[in-house]
Amino acid sequence: MEVFWSAGFNGCSVQDLTDAAHVPKGSFYNHFDGKEALALEALATYAAQNDPRALLDTSVEPVERLRRDFRKRWKIVKERGYKGGCFLGSLSSEIADSHEGARAEFVRYYQRWSEAIAAVIAEAQANGTVAATADPQALGRFVLNAWQGTLLRAKTHRGEEPFKDFQAVVFGGLLAPGA
Amino acid sequence: MEVFWSAGFNGCSVQDLTDAAHVPKGSFYNHFDGKEALALEALATYAAQNDPRALLDTSVEPVERLRRDFRKRWKIVKERGYKGGCFLGSLSSEIADSHEGARAEFVRYYQRWSEAIAAVIAEAQANGTVAATADPQALGRFVLNAWQGTLLRAKTHRGEEPFKDFQAVVFGGLLAPGA
Repeated sequence: MEVFWSAGFNGCSVQDLTDAAHVPKGSFYNHFDGKEALALEALATYAAQNDPRALLDTSVEPVERLRRDFRKRWKIVKERGYKGGCFLGSLSSEIADSHEGARAEFVRYYQRWSEAIAAVIAEAQANGTVAATADPQALGRFVLNAWQGTLLRAKTHRGEEPFKDFQAVVFGGLLAPGA
Repeated sequence: MEVFWSAGFNGCSVQDLTDAAHVPKGSFYNHFDGKEALALEALATYAAQNDPRALLDTSVEPVERLRRDFRKRWKIVKERGYKGGCFLGSLSSEIADSHEGARAEFVRYYQRWSEAIAAVIAEAQANGTVAATADPQALGRFVLNAWQGTLLRAKTHRGEEPFKDFQAVVFGGLLAPGA
């Protein structure tokens, strides 16, 4: 995963990948059909480590739960010096056009994640902490898209500003109490 | 530009680029230091074709001007079947980590664009069509980041939904009259 995340899908070779894993190149083709299969395996590992189901833990107030989840994700990219961005975002940006099978997987990951965000928003609308005027599904998708753009900008700028803008507008505006 | 946009920076070779331009490979190195220099040249052409200075034409009401600008940009990616996304977004996602000189250019393009959006928002706040509670610079950067995430999602989903979500939340919420 680290090799794909750092170098990009087309920026690394099967040799780079097998070197990093300390396995002989021949054994790669015994286990995987090709780089795409290995990248999807890496994405599954990444997704499991960053599972949006954590958003469904109802012991924390919904908006606060969402805020903490984004803060945790931000901390991970910040500790990497903002390099790599979101692995799902970067990989899908690079190969969604050229790898149709992978594209279907990306759709699934994005949907699962934005539905988890939508569920939190719907919960906050039900308990009155967020205004019930907007469709929670549309808002959930938008917030995830804005998050992906935030990480893309941070990858270029390498600073806190994109995250602060996201926090200010999403939690100080869109999902503010009584907004 | 088309070759970089379709295949990605690392997904195309100098041979692919010179073939597309119908020039001999040798002449490439007479004109450019390498692929990075050519990619930045292509980005400059793209940026000129999609100049955010169009946002500064004050003959149209500010929020409507912004809405039309995003609709025009959406039409371009839609006509490409959503492939490629935003050339600035895709290229910066792929090589900001690995090409430091290019990264500085990406920072410049993003700043210039988000400042143009911020100027429109400040104008709308001044004439009372958008509430003056939020910092227009932060809002301008956020809207651009959300737009980049919208195009990234559209690249994966290949449908209207991300644009509709963007329109609904940005123009129906964040920049709605009296919001």
